[in-house]
Amino acid sequence: MSDQSRHAGFTDLGFAKVDHDRARRTGIAEVVFGEGKTAEHIGQICQTMQDAGQECVLITRLDADKAAQLDGLGIQYFEQARVGIVGRIPQPTGKGTVVVACAGTSDLPVAEEAAITAEALGNQVSRLFDVGVAGIHRLLAHEDVLQQARVIIAVAGMEGALPSVIAGLVSCPVIAVPTSVGYGASFGGVTALLAMLNSCASGISVVNIDNGFGAAYQASQINHL
Amino acid sequence: MSDQSRHAGFTDLGFAKVDHDRARRTGIAEVVFGEGKTAEHIGQICQTMQDAGQECVLITRLDADKAAQLDGLGIQYFEQARVGIVGRIPQPTGKGTVVVACAGTSDLPVAEEAAITAEALGNQVSRLFDVGVAGIHRLLAHEDVLQQARVIIAVAGMEGALPSVIAGLVSCPVIAVPTSVGYGASFGGVTALLAMLNSCASGISVVNIDNGFGAAYQASQINHL
Amino acid sequence: MSDQSRHAGFTDLGFAKVDHDRARRTGIAEVVFGEGKTAEHIGQICQTMQDAGQECVLITRLDADKAAQLDGLGIQYFEQARVGIVGRIPQPTGKGTVVVACAGTSDLPVAEEAAITAEALGNQVSRLFDVGVAGIHRLLAHEDVLQQARVIIAVAGMEGALPSVIAGLVSCPVIAVPTSVGYGASFGGVTALLAMLNSCASGISVVNIDNGFGAAYQASQINHL
Amino acid sequence: MSDQSRHAGFTDLGFAKVDHDRARRTGIAEVVFGEGKTAEHIGQICQTMQDAGQECVLITRLDADKAAQLDGLGIQYFEQARVGIVGRIPQPTGKGTVVVACAGTSDLPVAEEAAITAEALGNQVSRLFDVGVAGIHRLLAHEDVLQQARVIIAVAGMEGALPSVIAGLVSCPVIAVPTSVGYGASFGGVTALLAMLNSCASGISVVNIDNGFGAAYQASQINHL
Amino acid sequence: MSDQSRHAGFTDLGFAKVDHDRARRTGIAEVVFGEGKTAEHIGQICQTMQDAGQECVLITRLDADKAAQLDGLGIQYFEQARVGIVGRIPQPTGKGTVVVACAGTSDLPVAEEAAITAEALGNQVSRLFDVGVAGIHRLLAHEDVLQQARVIIAVAGMEGALPSVIAGLVSCPVIAVPTSVGYGASFGGVTALLAMLNSCASGISVVNIDNGFGAAYQASQINHL
Amino acid sequence: MSDQSRHAGFTDLGFAKVDHDRARRTGIAEVVFGEGKTAEHIGQICQTMQDAGQECVLITRLDADKAAQLDGLGIQYFEQARVGIVGRIPQPTGKGTVVVACAGTSDLPVAEEAAITAEALGNQVSRLFDVGVAGIHRLLAHEDVLQQARVIIAVAGMEGALPSVIAGLVSCPVIAVPTSVGYGASFGGVTALLAMLNSCASGISVVNIDNGFGAAYQASQINHL
Amino acid sequence: MSDQSRHAGFTDLGFAKVDHDRARRTGIAEVVFGEGKTAEHIGQICQTMQDAGQECVLITRLDADKAAQLDGLGIQYFEQARVGIVGRIPQPTGKGTVVVACAGTSDLPVAEEAAITAEALGNQVSRLFDVGVAGIHRLLAHEDVLQQARVIIAVAGMEGALPSVIAGLVSCPVIAVPTSVGYGASFGGVTALLAMLNSCASGISVVNIDNGFGAAYQASQINHL
Amino acid sequence: MSDQSRHAGFTDLGFAKVDHDRARRTGIAEVVFGEGKTAEHIGQICQTMQDAGQECVLITRLDADKAAQLDGLGIQYFEQARVGIVGRIPQPTGKGTVVVACAGTSDLPVAEEAAITAEALGNQVSRLFDVGVAGIHRLLAHEDVLQQARVIIAVAGMEGALPSVIAGLVSCPVIAVPTSVGYGASFGGVTALLAMLNSCASGISVVNIDNGFGAAYQASQINHL
Repeated sequence: MSDQSRHAGFTDLGFAKVDHDRARRTGIAEVVFGEGKTAEHIGQICQTMQDAGQECVLITRLDADKAAQLDGLGIQYFEQARVGIVGRIPQPTGKGTVVVACAGTSDLPVAEEAAITAEALGNQVSRLFDVGVAGIHRLLAHEDVLQQARVIIAVAGMEGALPSVIAGLVSCPVIAVPTSVGYGASFGGVTALLAMLNSCASGISVVNIDNGFGAAYQASQINHL
Repeated sequence: MSDQSRHAGFTDLGFAKVDHDRARRTGIAEVVFGEGKTAEHIGQICQTMQDAGQECVLITRLDADKAAQLDGLGIQYFEQARVGIVGRIPQPTGKGTVVVACAGTSDLPVAEEAAITAEALGNQVSRLFDVGVAGIHRLLAHEDVLQQARVIIAVAGMEGALPSVIAGLVSCPVIAVPTSVGYGASFGGVTALLAMLNSCASGISVVNIDNGFGAAYQASQINHL
Repeated sequence: MSDQSRHAGFTDLGFAKVDHDRARRTGIAEVVFGEGKTAEHIGQICQTMQDAGQECVLITRLDADKAAQLDGLGIQYFEQARVGIVGRIPQPTGKGTVVVACAGTSDLPVAEEAAITAEALGNQVSRLFDVGVAGIHRLLAHEDVLQQARVIIAVAGMEGALPSVIAGLVSCPVIAVPTSVGYGASFGGVTALLAMLNSCASGISVVNIDNGFGAAYQASQINHL
Repeated sequence: MSDQSRHAGFTDLGFAKVDHDRARRTGIAEVVFGEGKTAEHIGQICQTMQDAGQECVLITRLDADKAAQLDGLGIQYFEQARVGIVGRIPQPTGKGTVVVACAGTSDLPVAEEAAITAEALGNQVSRLFDVGVAGIHRLLAHEDVLQQARVIIAVAGMEGALPSVIAGLVSCPVIAVPTSVGYGASFGGVTALLAMLNSCASGISVVNIDNGFGAAYQASQINHL
Repeated sequence: MSDQSRHAGFTDLGFAKVDHDRARRTGIAEVVFGEGKTAEHIGQICQTMQDAGQECVLITRLDADKAAQLDGLGIQYFEQARVGIVGRIPQPTGKGTVVVACAGTSDLPVAEEAAITAEALGNQVSRLFDVGVAGIHRLLAHEDVLQQARVIIAVAGMEGALPSVIAGLVSCPVIAVPTSVGYGASFGGVTALLAMLNSCASGISVVNIDNGFGAAYQASQINHL
Repeated sequence: MSDQSRHAGFTDLGFAKVDHDRARRTGIAEVVFGEGKTAEHIGQICQTMQDAGQECVLITRLDADKAAQLDGLGIQYFEQARVGIVGRIPQPTGKGTVVVACAGTSDLPVAEEAAITAEALGNQVSRLFDVGVAGIHRLLAHEDVLQQARVIIAVAGMEGALPSVIAGLVSCPVIAVPTSVGYGASFGGVTALLAMLNSCASGISVVNIDNGFGAAYQASQINHL
Repeated sequence: MSDQSRHAGFTDLGFAKVDHDRARRTGIAEVVFGEGKTAEHIGQICQTMQDAGQECVLITRLDADKAAQLDGLGIQYFEQARVGIVGRIPQPTGKGTVVVACAGTSDLPVAEEAAITAEALGNQVSRLFDVGVAGIHRLLAHEDVLQQARVIIAVAGMEGALPSVIAGLVSCPVIAVPTSVGYGASFGGVTALLAMLNSCASGISVVNIDNGFGAAYQASQINHL
Repeated sequence: MSDQSRHAGFTDLGFAKVDHDRARRTGIAEVVFGEGKTAEHIGQICQTMQDAGQECVLITRLDADKAAQLDGLGIQYFEQARVGIVGRIPQPTGKGTVVVACAGTSDLPVAEEAAITAEALGNQVSRLFDVGVAGIHRLLAHEDVLQQARVIIAVAGMEGALPSVIAGLVSCPVIAVPTSVGYGASFGGVTALLAMLNSCASGISVVNIDNGFGAAYQASQINHL
């Protein structure tokens, strides 16, 4: 691509137009979606962002191999969450706590993606894992943690019932994240997604399957209002 | 159809082969599925069954119009459940109680179909309605009823989470009935059906959408073991 | 149902367990989902709520016929939104403005359901209608309205692209509402729903098809933090 | 996760909250779902269960590699069924016999998962394999086995017709298990699942695709009533 | 449309191009699909066919109202099958018998469409109705009828298992017709269609949902070889 | 909506923002989608367009009742196509001929919507109806018409094969329009849509089900290049 | 499995019940579906069949590795078709010719499975490959081959239009085989399957995706009538 | 296949019938779809085409391995686009410029397939990459490039909104290409496909998922009119 990078607001790398203007427009700097990009491209994008003054660059869906190739950038890599961070995680600037709850141990990678993203965006995070509805007393035993949240991210696969029960207990917004955990008629998370969209409880909105990042991004927006 | 009704075990009415042998084979006499049959045909089938000695004939999915046309048979009609009964409901012969629980008031028609079917098949029934998971304390307040059941029918539409929570609380089998209650991405009950099939709780099996009859039939089998 | 209404926190009407405890638990009193309930049942539930001290009862998915039957309750009926209000809409208590934007004139019923719900829950609402992406200048001409929002509800059918463009322009959370507007491969709103879940813009979460109420409920939670 | 394991009823391992209370609540101790867990985590969970007094720990969806790593626990591994057992299979305590029937030889892994689970939960099991409906005489030749069952698990892929034929022959409950056996329009077991949900025979309930464990769990509940 | 009907092989009526050449090419004269055509158009097409020498014109998917408007053509109307015949049903010219079997009484309209179509195309037809697999003895009692068929049309809704059982009993080809009979997860016949496509029995091919005509057409082709 | 219509490029009617700028931007003036709008709203929008100097206003998906209510505007109504035109159809200004071909007589409404839209947008149109692939000689007999087209709109329901055959015969672009004609597994046009998207012939693009308007719009763009 | 093989009509190998009675019942001996069976099991089943007097054993869906392991049986392996034959292909005994036509070169594996199966079942086969509808003259150039067929197997992926065109040209039955050839919205053959089920031509029935064997089996039945 | 290549218009290679007549019929010579063909077969087809006088042979969906095996043909290989060209890319002969726009960097392979195909078919191409709607200013900054196009190919995955925004800005036809970029509820490109089919903007037609070739083929037809 022969186009020059001459337009205000973004740097044109040819293969990508890095959007510096985003922080001004949306309050949060651009994040790198690592999947489908080469380590080299990711590296150049991070460099461009840092050159433009961004202190903490978040890279999601980054596998361990590419993370290893990015070592030169001083990357901090979270394997379970498949998240990389270049620069340093900032001090929490949000108003309250973001609670990340998940139903089962298999949901941990998505829950951790959400938790680390929220931390990287400047939020205090409280984790509440393996509190699925089949053993409801495990959830009720932590009702105090839920009550103190400013926003809750509820992560679940299979029948995706966790957000419904949580939203019935609290007054803060709940962002539901369906995961691809399950088999057979779970259809890679579609069942959990549909269940969450059809919750009988009010106060729930939903993001894409396995999109821990997206939930944390909006949770951070809410927590910084 | 020129075939003669000459085979042992069923009466051939031309438009139907009424199965007298079923009670011997399966322990429960044939039930009439009213949908898609004319009142006249239903009448003839009931007559044939009564002639063959069946004391209580159950007709499901019977609308009010057809029920009115069957008045001559001394039919007892349950409008909400869309169930008709010719003959008399027997005394309970089951070993314990069948609990029919439902999540919301919109699930009542299906829950009642299940409850009346179970009664017509000789079971003691306990109803627990409007105990959806968005207000979990309403369900927990009746935990004693659940604990005393021999088998539980859990009816829910929308995200279909009720059976998961119930099955986590009890030791008896739970038969889940998804209902077509909901809109948008509930897809006429498909979401509830999928959620129930993917329950993280053990001890749940599922029947077709809105199939209160089918759940009660199996519950009765279990309760008569 | 022979059960007595003896448990703290809800009134048992037999066909429904009205949840008085919800306001304490979730900060917002129970709302009546009108679809599939008779006018008589709706009336009884409203009465029970008012008796328990709730000043503004919101009834969603209420058709004009039932609304007429509820005249005795002093209901205020919004036909396009199919919303009824018993009691009075409160003064705004939220921190900022909830913007309700919609893509086309056919999306108005859902957008209005969202707007009136938000008002009934104590929010200042700003409407921005018919700003679909096929004429992007109509949206950009109102960028100032978007920038001043505390939370935005973006309503769209067909390809559901509006939330993506809006979320790229603002720093506040965007709640996307897919509508069933469209034909053929819009599949009653499924296409818009899927598009919104897959938005390339961050800061979007999604509710069920045509669920203007649900979006407004969460928007109000956010606006009252 | 910094939370302490201080609540009665479960041990908090951080990555999991092991539910000791389940046996009291549901009559059956917790089972380990092996898929998506590391051998190390499985080992810790088993240890925690044994420490809490559970004599027979069942691990499902356990592949051969992980089973090998768990050798130190004295695990007994069933390769076809992908089931591991730590401790000893108990003597049958159920009231009657659980029959596990399957349609074809490709359904064996699921049928064996069901059979071994049922045995591990204290049931007498009778296997009836390769009795698909395309050669109906093979099934009818074993009608006596079916008649003596207290509960039947019917396993089938492809068109999933086996449960319908069986349920028409017996008076006990039939739990249908669709398998992912087939190709093309079998859609990984969805066709068999749908067929089973739509059975024209009464007395059938259904579990998730390939969920031999779930069927056996409920069969055991029924057999222990 | 101003085009003249000048091409050999078809008459151009403007709204339709009636294909006289079909009998020469395919051995069977054109059939009129009545749905979506006005009575007037149907009348003109029939007239054109008769003028071209066709002795028996078959009209499928013809509702009673349109049939009444076509009285002037001397139409013979079969209400259950929704089939009209102008002219006379020919003497059987096929080599053997076409057996039309159906699973339940609700499948009768489709089964009758198949039976009457087959008769109109010159075949001896034998009907075997209400022989669904839940009462397998009803089917086995008529095994002789099946054995004497030259081709069998097997009609079923719900789980669509009938063709599998029949094909396992006979040596002639079986054409399976799924019907839209059922509810919930029958999805208007899709479940039966999928089940039939996945039959574990060999010798089955399938036509569209409710397409009794199409099955009979091919059965007639086979019976006239 | 209290907003004033103050922005250049569109008139704000409150319920709609009429886009005058479109003709400048896209070369074709705005068209009114009649479905879901009241006759009154349609009338106001037409008036606004005419006031802004548009000579021919096209209204699609307009039912006969609303058309009757718009009589005062001097509307010309095409019933089969469900299209209304206010003003006069212009002389053809396109470079060549747009051929509209359809497979069966049931596809006529969609084909006519395409043909009249193309005429209203200034194109010479040639109609070629009932040329489905089951009688391929009917299509081949008109190969000359196809060869002389500048762009072809190919309309078909059911298996949607017509565009593939046409595109193999010509050098001009083919725009395929799937229709909702069919039953059972045609899924309201989805099958035809999918078939067209998967055509083995090159030179085909596809629009939404029943979207004759959309195909004609693009055909007109191409014909005016 | 401790059951003895004592029932007339089949040999019980434990993992399989080999059906000797099938030839008597259905006129064609049992065929081995190789997928999901070990080479050892396949070997034992073949041996059992040969011992029971079957001269030609057909094994479908057999990969090259297993075929190599079965060398000792004197297997003849057709790699493209993934078919193995133990024993010798018989002389043709059918009444006429089975034509196997396919649309593209990627459909060859399925077409060859059909062709070799038909030959193994005693039919004269004529192959007509790469005659897809995008170059209709290639098909028309071979119209004589089509006209002389007794039954035609039409194999196609992508839009699956070939059977429609063929069935419009001939008087014999056409069995359509959708293949999984294609990408994107071909959904692994589902599009071709749906298109074939919705053919506007009469005289077509359909088998499962990639089921060349099933089509050939029924073609052979028809050809031997 | 023993057939001789004796028919005018194509060369019969046995495994393929190479269509020389296509250039005469459709104006563009045959293109080789590389997927599912062996390098040897591709080589023979290219040779046959070159022998027949075709100067530039385009091979799509060609992986690097096969390309390496075709080195002897003097192939030029474009790795990202997975396209090979034998012979030389011609001078542009189209009337104007084809703009290829894509939403994100992950869409590059499909966009490049489109761009190189268009170049190989004789078109001037302008690339506009990474202009997705979440940063609308990046697109608007290049509005001049869009305005000068004769036809635009708009490539996008995820929510597929790019074509809607572009079509609202220009007067030339837009061909939309959905890509399989995304995860979860993007369903391998289905969401983008559906969104594009439901665009609220006029002037858009759509091709199959990832079908950059097909879009470029039609764009070239339009550009050469």
